[in-house]
Formats: sequence, C-alpha cells, structure tokens
Amino acid sequence: MQNFIFHNPTKIIFGEGEIGALDAHIPRHARVLITAGGGSIKHNGVLAQVQAALGSRQHFLFEGIEPNPAYETLMKAVALAREKNIDFLLAVGGGSVIDGTKFIAAALKFKGEPWDILSKQTPVTQAMPFGTVLTLPATGSEMNCGAVISYRARGDKLVFSSEATFPVFSILDPTVTYSLPPRQVANGVVDAFVHIVEQYLTYPVDARVQDRFAEGLLLTLTEIGPQALAEPHNYAVRANLMWTATLALNGLIGAGVPQDWATHMLGHELTALHGLDHAQTLAIVLPALLSVRRESKRDKLLQYATRVWHITEGTADERITAGIAATRAFFEKMTLPTHLSDYQIKPASIAILMAKLEEHGMSALGEREDMTLAISRQVYERAL
Amino acid sequence: MQNFIFHNPTKIIFGEGEIGALDAHIPRHARVLITAGGGSIKHNGVLAQVQAALGSRQHFLFEGIEPNPAYETLMKAVALAREKNIDFLLAVGGGSVIDGTKFIAAALKFKGEPWDILSKQTPVTQAMPFGTVLTLPATGSEMNCGAVISYRARGDKLVFSSEATFPVFSILDPTVTYSLPPRQVANGVVDAFVHIVEQYLTYPVDARVQDRFAEGLLLTLTEIGPQALAEPHNYAVRANLMWTATLALNGLIGAGVPQDWATHMLGHELTALHGLDHAQTLAIVLPALLSVRRESKRDKLLQYATRVWHITEGTADERITAGIAATRAFFEKMTLPTHLSDYQIKPASIAILMAKLEEHGMSALGEREDMTLAISRQVYERAL
Repeated sequence: MQNFIFHNPTKIIFGEGEIGALDAHIPRHARVLITAGGGSIKHNGVLAQVQAALGSRQHFLFEGIEPNPAYETLMKAVALAREKNIDFLLAVGGGSVIDGTKFIAAALKFKGEPWDILSKQTPVTQAMPFGTVLTLPATGSEMNCGAVISYRARGDKLVFSSEATFPVFSILDPTVTYSLPPRQVANGVVDAFVHIVEQYLTYPVDARVQDRFAEGLLLTLTEIGPQALAEPHNYAVRANLMWTATLALNGLIGAGVPQDWATHMLGHELTALHGLDHAQTLAIVLPALLSVRRESKRDKLLQYATRVWHITEGTADERITAGIAATRAFFEKMTLPTHLSDYQIKPASIAILMAKLEEHGMSALGEREDMTLAISRQVYERAL
Repeated sequence: MQNFIFHNPTKIIFGEGEIGALDAHIPRHARVLITAGGGSIKHNGVLAQVQAALGSRQHFLFEGIEPNPAYETLMKAVALAREKNIDFLLAVGGGSVIDGTKFIAAALKFKGEPWDILSKQTPVTQAMPFGTVLTLPATGSEMNCGAVISYRARGDKLVFSSEATFPVFSILDPTVTYSLPPRQVANGVVDAFVHIVEQYLTYPVDARVQDRFAEGLLLTLTEIGPQALAEPHNYAVRANLMWTATLALNGLIGAGVPQDWATHMLGHELTALHGLDHAQTLAIVLPALLSVRRESKRDKLLQYATRVWHITEGTADERITAGIAATRAFFEKMTLPTHLSDYQIKPASIAILMAKLEEHGMSALGEREDMTLAISRQVYERAL
C-alpha cells in the first residue's frame, strides 16, 4: 500500500424524504443562492421541494448552469451572489451544477481574477460554504472537492480541486432520480463504473481493502445497472446506484493505490471534437485501452476477471480476454455503444484527436506515466 | 437501504514515516498535551518520534491512561491541561488512550460536572481539538467520535459520542505496530472482525455496497490475520490490518443498515466480572450467539457463509453451521479460545452475569430489539 492522506468532511444525508430536512443543515441566518441547470428540477418537482423546505428563509435562484459548466455562466452567478449578499450556496442538480457551484464558491472568496484558479492553478484556500441536493447519480461531485470547468470562448476545459470546496452536506434522495431519462441513468452507471476502474485496474500494491471495496462497487453496478434501466421506480436499485456512484469517486478507493485516468483523457478529446456524452466516450475508450494495455495491467486484469466477472475457466490470457469482453458487453447492455464507428466517427478523425492530445500535453498517461502518444493512437485505432 | 446520515471529518494520514510530518497538522501556535498509556511508547521509540516531530513547540506529557480508561485518571489530565493552558491534545496510543482523550477534550469545554456527559448523557456540543498517533489497530477510535469510559469507584462503564469528538487527524504508521505483543495483535484482529459482524450479520435491507464493503473487510481479516501473528514485520500485512480496523468502525459500513451489538453487551459483563480482555469475550460470545440466533439471522448467515467463507456445498442449514464453525475456527487460529470453560468460568457464573445484564437494562438486545434475557442466557449457556 502506498502512503496516503484521506480526508472527506462532507456530510451525506441519504434517503427518501430527506430534502424536507434541508433547512436544518444550513446556517440559521444564511442568505441562500440556489444554483441549478436546465428546467428538469422544475418539471420533476425537486425545486419545489427544495423551496418548500427552505420555508421563510430568504433565498434566490440562479438557473442555466449547462453540461460542462462554462466559466462565462458561472461568473454571472458570482455577480448575482455578490449583489444579493449571499452567504450560502445550494447546488440542486447533477455533476455539472455541483462542479459549477464549487467554482462559484471559490471565485466568491478569491482575491484576483478567478480564471487563474483554472489556468494558473492558483491555490484556492477559502470558499463560500455550499450544500448540494443531488439529482443524478454519476460523477461523485457531491462528495469530493474537485470540479471540471470549461471556458467556451477559449475552448478550454480545466480542473481544480481544493480542501475548501468539499460540499458541507449533500442530500441524496433516490426518489428524485425516478424521472431521469434512461440515457442519463445509463451514462451515470458507466461513468461510475469507469471511475472505479481508473483507480483499480492498474498494478497490485497489496492494498486489499481498496481492491475489495472497488470490486464491491463494480459488482454492485453489474448487478443493478440493467435493473436501474428496466425498473426506474425500484427504490432499492436507485438507492444502491446513488450510494455506489458517490463512493466511486470520494477518495476512499483511490487512497493508497496507483491511479490511471488515461481513459478519461482520451475520452475528453472525443467529447471536445465530436460532442459525445462523457460516459459515451468512456464506454468506447475503456475496452480498447484494456485490450492495448493488457500486459502492463496483467495482474489486476486477472483479478478483475475472477472477482468481478467470476471468470475462472481457461488460461490466464483467455480469462483476461473474457474479462475485457464482459466489460464491453456490460456497457452495450447498458445501451452504450463501444466503437467509434457506432457514432460514424471515421479513422480520419484519429489524426485530429492525436493532435489535440499532444497539444494538451498527454504524452505520458497512465498509472506508470508510460502511455506514450503512440500507445494512445493504438487505443483510438482499436476503438474504431 | 435505510435512511442514514454519514459524516466523518477525521483526516487520515497513513503510512511509514508519516509521524515525522506531525507538526504540520497541528495549529501553529497551539500548546500541546500528549496523552498516553503505559510505558510501551517509550520502549518502542514512538514517543521519541512524536516529540522529535514536535520540535521546538511547547508540549507536555500526561501518562497513565489505563485500559478501560478511568474517569478518575482522565480528570487529572483535565486539571493538567488547564494548568498548562493547553489548546490541542495529542493522543499517542491505542483505543483506550484515544477514548480517554475524547473525554478529556469534551470535559475541558464542558459547562458543569463532566461526569454528566456519561451518567446523564448531557450532549457534548464542543470539545478541545485533538489528533491521534495510533499504535494499536483494533478499536477504530482513531476515526470515530465515540468513547467508552469507566468510573472505577462506582463500577460503571459508560459510552458517549459527539460530532465534536472526532479526531482532527489520525496518523496511522503500520511500522509502529511491529513491536506489539502477539496477544494485542490477535485481540485487535478479533475486535475488528466482530465490529464488522455486528453491523453486517443482521437481516437484509438490500444495502449492497455496505454488504460488499463489510465482506471485503472480513475477507481481508481472514486472509491477513494469521500472517499478522506469524510475520510481525510484514509491512503490507500490518498496513492492511491497520486500515481494515479503522474502516471497521468509522460509520461507513454501518450507514443505512441494522446493527446488532448484542455480542458486545454480553461480552462487557464478562470483562466486568471475570477480567477477560474485550476481544477475548467477543471470541467466546459471537459463535454462541450466532448459533442461538441462527433463525433470526438466517438470510445474512447464508450470505456470510458463501461470500466470506466460500461455503457452497450442503443444505442451507449445513452451510450456516459451517459458517459459524469457520468463525470459531478463525478465532481459535488467532489464538483466542471460544468457550467460557477455557478460562475456567463455570456454569454458576451465568446467574451473576444475567443479574448484571438485567441491572444494566439489557432486556431487548439485537438488531430487532427482540433478544430477551432468556435468549441471552441461552447464549451464555451455549458458550460454556
């Protein structure tokens, strides 16, 4: 096991009906700005629940945080929060709204130009406190301190994280996910699955607990993923999905182990160039990457095949092949295609993807930082 | 899954050499009181490491916190902390030292008679901040907010917990456990094992992640427990043991599931009456309790037999019997006897144990609060 620091102060309030207790978790005299995305929380009643829970407390609403939240949009929220003398933010939405709210919280307390938080990675030492009401199990943003922010005008997509941008609390009510479109549910399952794999399918460091926890989360997703699509109102299934997605990226399973994240890097370029959903890119890249990197990930691939997919027959190479095939089949069962050609992306795109990857400095990816651009090209080619 | 709140703000700093970075985690101008038990941290060099890490910072030492820490002792530490104008406590030791330090921290900020924290369960709303340097993987106190405190003069042993008594940080360096006596290592493994079982072997509520995590921790203990005894200087084994024992009781696997704790309650009376180590009592009570309660725990016992002990042959009843037998065999492999007679405790003791259990109001134990005194008597009898 590698040395690590694990610290996660976010309070999770989990279960049906817990939005009703929202107000008790916000400082008594705080003026609240609700931050939100599109209109779904109006249609499904979540916004009304939140506003009812806030009662007579003074609060305001900022709408319009888009998928891949934009700096330009978020700075409008910063201006509104200043104008209204806000002292607590409440993100009501999925990962994009929560990520965006982390940036708003940091920008409100930042001395200088907030874009520096992203472009210069200027450390964020304080932020306005914020809570979340999660509506989409997928990214884990509700229990971590990181965010991905885009600057539309510059075509940039950058990350930041800070001890100051953990949510104070997150309310996870599985019933608010009942009305999600199937595509978002499927994307959420695949997103969480790949988050786990990025922290697990590397090389062994005798971190038994982290391995067992990662495998437990993966097994849970394989068991409940298809059910989450087939039975949208199954509380137990949605509850397990929600808690799994949160634990997939809250720092716990990644503490003390190597991490990969190459699938995410290659996927980001696909989103940027072809507009695919984030999870759609992961479903394409991961099986190809595991196939190309099967030697360097050999020991963990064998463990994965046995413990997650219960593959015990055949030679070691056959079991690895079967484990990768099972991964691909699972994504396809979740309705996500696993080839570039499924989206009419042609071989000619690969040169452009590679140029972008190089431009973004992605020449030494993976848990050993030995995944060269040439290897990344092989992955894209394998994904055709 | 049941509704739950999960909140654990303790920062874990894990790995060999991390004690050296101790000072950076303590507020800059804080005056520190180190709290400790007997002399072991002097003999094994841990105290010297801690003091070296504190450098020129002003600090004081309070020694003598005993196993089952006593109110009388702890109030002496409170007096010393007041006298020296302490503003940060640093517990260096195992569960007893850390539990005791939680009480000292609470008492220092308490208005009124601190004994009320235990006897009247007066809520603790603030406490002096404290960190820990863990020396014994067992109780999980390093990452939770609860404590068990005894009042020798009154023969009481009482618990308290508060959001204010989470350690600010805990440093877990597996190498400091190399010099532990085998008995303490064995006790620690069994203690952690039973902590997990108390939160897992109840009845199913479709909490898949909690189940998988609990099973992952149990599997880890079954794999590394005997090795921890046989190879005291095996870093990977001690690291996995330390992290497992912490996660066994930090709130995570118990969130959203029923909990039992009857084994602990019956065990406490054995410690009080016969002076057995806490873990020794658990090793005796648990196999007997599982045997007596096999019908009410039927579904989870089957899952436990399959997933933790890989028992797949035989009828359901045979598998349950085999799972309980495997538990007993594991404790005995860890050198802990599993019968009262192994400690020369005679059937005549049971009447006294039962009187104490009744006196302490333990007439409705277990995850369903349906374990009557008559059932507890059966457990003691089965344990002979």
